[in-house]
Amino acid sequence: MASTFRKEMIVEFADTDLAGIAHFSQFFLYAERTEHAFLRSLGLSLVEDDENSPEKEGGGRPGWPRVHASFDYLAPLRFEDQFAVTLGLERIGERSVHYRFLVEKGDQVCGRGKLVAAHVRIDPCTGLVEGAPVPDSFRAMVRELDEAELAVFLD
Amino acid sequence: MASTFRKEMIVEFADTDLAGIAHFSQFFLYAERTEHAFLRSLGLSLVEDDENSPEKEGGGRPGWPRVHASFDYLAPLRFEDQFAVTLGLERIGERSVHYRFLVEKGDQVCGRGKLVAAHVRIDPCTGLVEGAPVPDSFRAMVRELDEAELAVFLD
Amino acid sequence: MASTFRKEMIVEFADTDLAGIAHFSQFFLYAERTEHAFLRSLGLSLVEDDENSPEKEGGGRPGWPRVHASFDYLAPLRFEDQFAVTLGLERIGERSVHYRFLVEKGDQVCGRGKLVAAHVRIDPCTGLVEGAPVPDSFRAMVRELDEAELAVFLD
Amino acid sequence: MASTFRKEMIVEFADTDLAGIAHFSQFFLYAERTEHAFLRSLGLSLVEDDENSPEKEGGGRPGWPRVHASFDYLAPLRFEDQFAVTLGLERIGERSVHYRFLVEKGDQVCGRGKLVAAHVRIDPCTGLVEGAPVPDSFRAMVRELDEAELAVFLD
Repeated sequence: MASTFRKEMIVEFADTDLAGIAHFSQFFLYAERTEHAFLRSLGLSLVEDDENSPEKEGGGRPGWPRVHASFDYLAPLRFEDQFAVTLGLERIGERSVHYRFLVEKGDQVCGRGKLVAAHVRIDPCTGLVEGAPVPDSFRAMVRELDEAELAVFLD
Repeated sequence: MASTFRKEMIVEFADTDLAGIAHFSQFFLYAERTEHAFLRSLGLSLVEDDENSPEKEGGGRPGWPRVHASFDYLAPLRFEDQFAVTLGLERIGERSVHYRFLVEKGDQVCGRGKLVAAHVRIDPCTGLVEGAPVPDSFRAMVRELDEAELAVFLD
Repeated sequence: MASTFRKEMIVEFADTDLAGIAHFSQFFLYAERTEHAFLRSLGLSLVEDDENSPEKEGGGRPGWPRVHASFDYLAPLRFEDQFAVTLGLERIGERSVHYRFLVEKGDQVCGRGKLVAAHVRIDPCTGLVEGAPVPDSFRAMVRELDEAELAVFLD
Repeated sequence: MASTFRKEMIVEFADTDLAGIAHFSQFFLYAERTEHAFLRSLGLSLVEDDENSPEKEGGGRPGWPRVHASFDYLAPLRFEDQFAVTLGLERIGERSVHYRFLVEKGDQVCGRGKLVAAHVRIDPCTGLVEGAPVPDSFRAMVRELDEAELAVFLD
């Protein structure tokens, strides 16, 4: 049962700013890419096929708008640095999921982050967004980290 | 009758890369911001109100997907440089519009660009995209530049 | 003595994602633009002229790398929404500055954010980064908000 | 002798815009990522180690500022689309390199692009930029495509 997920990346030229390091906002993109790769690894794409989606419960498309996003920065990432983002599941709420992220270059921690995403269904015709319970399929596939496992994500 | 349009901007920190200059891809964002400000100045927002849009002719929402985009770079833009983007209308086709752009810092030309945008109507429910004639309201409000006017946009 | 600062902006097309709203990472760019406009309003550009900079104290260029960045999201911003970002100074530490941000569309609060920036001097030749006291000129120009003033930035 | 290079990628959520497709400016980032991966594959990183760089000829760091960038768009890329970017070397000039790019999703061509990059050396202390011959090491490692090979990059 998946509860952490790791994705390797490289700092691209356009990610950097004139200070020569990855712009701080990029860490949120790195976290989101990891989250989406995690969802794909569970067969839960954001753009699910309407026919055979495991999380198809109500109408509309699934969405995960963010309620909270934060990062603590401990060391910079530079152009062409290879790094890994580890995602951990802190909490699965009724209608939201709390992720933790660790950004590491080798054994150096560069950042610790958090994303809280609400689960919604979006009607494509009207654009109406409605809160929706976290799909059972999601709960069935993953579990929350226990305290010891979570500790690595906290400073 | 509008045929050129000018927008002043400043280079933001996140626009720069480790070479200390605005990343070349930013010029396309600067051009697009100018195009959209131009459309707004004509009362032609991309997210038109369904009730009283001047270009409402068929169903769905208007879209201007790009067919071509290019820039020639003559001088760099740096953090906090103030610059102006001038848009000129090269050609209004049956279903497409050809824009030219001039990016200037003071009297120095930093870039010359081109965007060709097709006009489409997008069905929000199905996502289907269909080519659509350039709205008459658009033609009525603007005219193509003549050769002398266009010359400034070409190198 | 400046302690809050307000900047009006518009949501650009490229800021949006397929959910039709400004991507959550854009709020950090909106905050940073406001911070830099605030610094410029104080005459404290990040790319100071070496001759007559008010914060020139040691060698090198000034830098404000981020120690922490966070946002709480209350309502989405959509394409062409006009909004305002208000910056408040929560705390000026020995070598860091704590900013709070409020993102508002009309009288609707869309986001509440926080940036903690360290002050450093960067040697352009070697790239060496050294912690540096927050410049006296900065302290002289601004003051921290009191509790009542800060309350608006907190939820 | 390398003359084409292929890199597989996926469309990330933040690459998309409200039209539900990868924003047209992303194609330039996809091309640049491919160019830099190509340079790395030749051992020619942009942030070369000063000691044992194969292209170390004069002082300073290497840079490849863009002289021209363009794309023709034939089909959209959508969120989570897997696609490949193929780079081809059209011409190696005295002080510049002309790249061609093909963006393909399966056997569908989504875009055809071009980048012309000048070769420069940048003095990190003064920031002075000087044109520099394309390194012999680069010429030794790659060759220009012949007409038949180039044809695939042209429409």
